[in-house]
Amino acid sequence: MQADLLSPAQRTRVAQLLHQHTPLVHCMTNDVVQTFTANVLLALGASPAMVIDAGEAAQFSAIASSLLINVGTLTQPRAQAMRAAVESANHNNTPWTLDPVAVGALSLRSDFCRDLLLLRPTAIRGNASEIMALEGQSAGGRGVDTTDTAAAALPAAQRLARESGAIVAVTGEVDYITDGQRTLMAQGGDPLMTRVVGTGCALSAVVAACCALPGDRLENIAGACALMKYAGQQAAHGRGPGSFIPAFLDALYVMNEGKAV
Amino acid sequence: MQADLLSPAQRTRVAQLLHQHTPLVHCMTNDVVQTFTANVLLALGASPAMVIDAGEAAQFSAIASSLLINVGTLTQPRAQAMRAAVESANHNNTPWTLDPVAVGALSLRSDFCRDLLLLRPTAIRGNASEIMALEGQSAGGRGVDTTDTAAAALPAAQRLARESGAIVAVTGEVDYITDGQRTLMAQGGDPLMTRVVGTGCALSAVVAACCALPGDRLENIAGACALMKYAGQQAAHGRGPGSFIPAFLDALYVMNEGKAV
Amino acid sequence: MQADLLSPAQRTRVAQLLHQHTPLVHCMTNDVVQTFTANVLLALGASPAMVIDAGEAAQFSAIASSLLINVGTLTQPRAQAMRAAVESANHNNTPWTLDPVAVGALSLRSDFCRDLLLLRPTAIRGNASEIMALEGQSAGGRGVDTTDTAAAALPAAQRLARESGAIVAVTGEVDYITDGQRTLMAQGGDPLMTRVVGTGCALSAVVAACCALPGDRLENIAGACALMKYAGQQAAHGRGPGSFIPAFLDALYVMNEGKAV
Repeated sequence: MQADLLSPAQRTRVAQLLHQHTPLVHCMTNDVVQTFTANVLLALGASPAMVIDAGEAAQFSAIASSLLINVGTLTQPRAQAMRAAVESANHNNTPWTLDPVAVGALSLRSDFCRDLLLLRPTAIRGNASEIMALEGQSAGGRGVDTTDTAAAALPAAQRLARESGAIVAVTGEVDYITDGQRTLMAQGGDPLMTRVVGTGCALSAVVAACCALPGDRLENIAGACALMKYAGQQAAHGRGPGSFIPAFLDALYVMNEGKAV
Repeated sequence: MQADLLSPAQRTRVAQLLHQHTPLVHCMTNDVVQTFTANVLLALGASPAMVIDAGEAAQFSAIASSLLINVGTLTQPRAQAMRAAVESANHNNTPWTLDPVAVGALSLRSDFCRDLLLLRPTAIRGNASEIMALEGQSAGGRGVDTTDTAAAALPAAQRLARESGAIVAVTGEVDYITDGQRTLMAQGGDPLMTRVVGTGCALSAVVAACCALPGDRLENIAGACALMKYAGQQAAHGRGPGSFIPAFLDALYVMNEGKAV
Repeated sequence: MQADLLSPAQRTRVAQLLHQHTPLVHCMTNDVVQTFTANVLLALGASPAMVIDAGEAAQFSAIASSLLINVGTLTQPRAQAMRAAVESANHNNTPWTLDPVAVGALSLRSDFCRDLLLLRPTAIRGNASEIMALEGQSAGGRGVDTTDTAAAALPAAQRLARESGAIVAVTGEVDYITDGQRTLMAQGGDPLMTRVVGTGCALSAVVAACCALPGDRLENIAGACALMKYAGQQAAHGRGPGSFIPAFLDALYVMNEGKAV
């Protein structure tokens, strides 16, 4: 396993690109994390929009900079709307990112995510259990928690990247980002991030935003992982999970000012 | 364009009326801003309730003090439930407010909002792009962002007010509130308010609450705009978007104590 | 009316048990409180998961430690999914908790909650108006607010407990927790908790989590009520409703460290 550690400069560059390009991110995400996801994107200078009716979602993913599909609170009507959005995104060259929340043990989302792989996502972001389940190795974790480490899932992530054509980010204590050939690594973060709902889901939205940036996509996505870990580390310092949330958004907000280097 | 600037005393009076009358606001709003909307109303002494099933929504809008319709995450079933609520509100003299989020480019919400105009909303609150699109001038903005200033949209707002019978608040860096004859103006606020999701949607909920207050409705709605801008200005001072959110709710909470004057 | 006051040690013991057992709580709750509910459970060491499709909900409640049903934003499809989850929970001996939000005046939720009583919930948590309406005494309160005190609803709570087999927590300024024979009492809290959306709904989620703990269930549920009141009291001190929210989560987070005694 060879993985290159991302430099602080790469993380700052991604934050600057987000502020310069203000990507309009069409978020089709779960009920629990919508507000936090929107606020994370706004803090980074991106522009979130949640559009969920099938007809409107297809219209909107045609004009958005990128699309996020997160299956956390999937229902049959939402699956149909997501599929319509993905097909429109592909037709209009809008990059799209898949977050396969809790895939494995639950049927509707597992079948749906495997179907979506055929529509060739631009990026996939999940924890170790989710990536291994999506790749076909395991039955998934315990709800949204992972029971495996990201390092253990890296071979599955690399195979998934090669098979699907997506850049795959498998995240945990350390994040690995791979296109199946090259692998980058992002370190940092804090265990407190697992005591706040939505940090992983919001990262997927930032990954989606980065898919709309110019430059090396693998490095940009790794930069997204690194900047979220860095802001999390800063925000966790001496705090509980409640005060972490505003501190995390504040830390993201100043990320493009070069203070992060 | 003649518009009278609201005095600080009018803003404080609205805050005091909200605490005295504790209007019960039936919020049919989008998924992203529900919690923030509820907390804004609670901080101001109003009482929010989200009831979304068509049958229950019709029952509830009959007994609520006012109704809010926000189409941010519209779906077909929600549109049906909203229509049932509006018809019941009209039948029971419950004032109702329309927030035409991102109307213009997206079909379902654009058709739905134009239909709703025939049911004569009490108030309409939107940004410049939304008001111009609703009035028929433009194809709308970029998602929920506006690409026009409120001042540029004032003529459209005045026409919309005259045609629909609603009081129209077109909000941005400066807010204009008009019944088609008189126009009031609210200043203040902070650019940080655009880096937090839901400040506009929550304002629409406060406008809805103010439609249930005694006195001059145009002045009450302008007071709602002014108090949100004032609280935003106070909360933004030296803060990032994360710490802005609790500070904003805290600032609203003390607004009726005369500190705002 | 005889009710024994809970000791601080019982409250701390429940916090410690939650951290030790990390119950996986399947939350089927309303749109407004999902994020706050998840963050409250995470702060206490429990593991929340929101799964809402009927098929997936039945799969998940079979493997979860406990299930929460909150009818705040009920719709017909959600009622069907909740029923499927409850039936699966009963089949798999997963304890489940009912929060009958605003039951009484609204038809769909009132009929649904009365039907659910036949499926024998493990616990029920509501305010005075809700418990009295569910037991059949009154037409319910004003939206989610209560117009009665918990003490006035205690006889109804006791009858409801005996008839349904559930432990019933009727909460307000003082909380009463009863199995129809024994009644415990939890004091504390702060009026500011009523100015923040979701404190009651989040308590129901903690009650659900406590149904999965070993030991005396009545005492564990009373401990849940007591620890939420204690954290609320600490967090409210000198704060407005906005800064209350992070302080409350922080206070819950340190509850198992013995600082609460």
